[in-house]
Amino acid sequence: MIETPAANSKNPLTVVAVLFPGFELLDVFGPLEMFGLLGDRTKINLTAMDLSPVASGAGPQALPDLQISKVAAPDVLLIPGGPGTRSLVEDSRFLEALSLCAEQSKIVASVCTGSALLARTGLLDGRTATSNKLAFDWATLQSAKVLWQPQARWVVDGKFWTSSGIAAGIDMTLALIAHLFDTPTAIETANRAEYLWNQNADSDPFAGGGGENA
Amino acid sequence: MIETPAANSKNPLTVVAVLFPGFELLDVFGPLEMFGLLGDRTKINLTAMDLSPVASGAGPQALPDLQISKVAAPDVLLIPGGPGTRSLVEDSRFLEALSLCAEQSKIVASVCTGSALLARTGLLDGRTATSNKLAFDWATLQSAKVLWQPQARWVVDGKFWTSSGIAAGIDMTLALIAHLFDTPTAIETANRAEYLWNQNADSDPFAGGGGENA
Repeated sequence: MIETPAANSKNPLTVVAVLFPGFELLDVFGPLEMFGLLGDRTKINLTAMDLSPVASGAGPQALPDLQISKVAAPDVLLIPGGPGTRSLVEDSRFLEALSLCAEQSKIVASVCTGSALLARTGLLDGRTATSNKLAFDWATLQSAKVLWQPQARWVVDGKFWTSSGIAAGIDMTLALIAHLFDTPTAIETANRAEYLWNQNADSDPFAGGGGENA
Repeated sequence: MIETPAANSKNPLTVVAVLFPGFELLDVFGPLEMFGLLGDRTKINLTAMDLSPVASGAGPQALPDLQISKVAAPDVLLIPGGPGTRSLVEDSRFLEALSLCAEQSKIVASVCTGSALLARTGLLDGRTATSNKLAFDWATLQSAKVLWQPQARWVVDGKFWTSSGIAAGIDMTLALIAHLFDTPTAIETANRAEYLWNQNADSDPFAGGGGENA
């Protein structure tokens, strides 16, 4: 855990997002938008196995600026989901690099099926966690040692923050900003993004794979 | 306008997003997430003045795959906002390239201060449009010939769709998907993204620069 609130730190909060082929765009850039709105109070990097451009599941490519083996104990490590997770859960080289990186990180936050990758590292053993509700059966199959929560917008257990699908990562990130800075800072960030923040981690309109939009 | 609904087309809907230094991450990747969830029904490209990596306002870089001068009449052209717009409104070379590209596009959709760039091309003259409510005074100063709407989540006038700040681009994009495909497709997309869609263009909780989050 971060011992002193980021709000009182002289150094910017370091946020590192993990990219892999087939990552989900909004899982990465929803949370990074919220951290980015904090301006000089955060420093954001993108990491991957190497520095080549990485194509998202939807096609657009982002450019990592840090090799995952060189990530040094960030304040927040962000792990997205996406179609690429389906093969990565069998990629021991990637999982080992992710595991080393997550162990050093002060806070590890996953979005969507990012928690399936994290579950495969063993770091969630014995902990509560959640995942995308439409891929919940697949995600939970990745480890029987995780206490999977079928109804939660996001779950916090120690330094591990895991959120439900895609847009839930934005709600979780705002809660993380409230935790690291304070609630007024998180509310101001949501208002600047013109985003209606679901502040209640237990309010999960998409539990069970349905949806509230109609 | 697109004459046949995209839902009945054999070809994927072509979506091209414009990048420039200092673009706002979520303005681009919120809408592209929604289009991307349509899978083979869309083809997404990123465009810029040249093919070098482009740094967002928050730092992370994306990689264009198409030079703006080579964009050929896409179905949807997406123009984001962001801190970079402040200098781009004076960049005649960029505005000329944007204008040529927007003229050919079947639909032009802007997010946040993207409408300030579009206003500077003259293509919004005599049309209704909106912009980010926190940058509204600056955006509307870019052209007195646009009928600026101070209270609207998004505005549609002919082929021009303009949205309010950042997250409003997601709501507008889902409405655009409903327009191009059908409403059930838009609802399914929102549910897959676990995103609570504000379906009402007139419901603008951030009008006047305040915010509903508290």
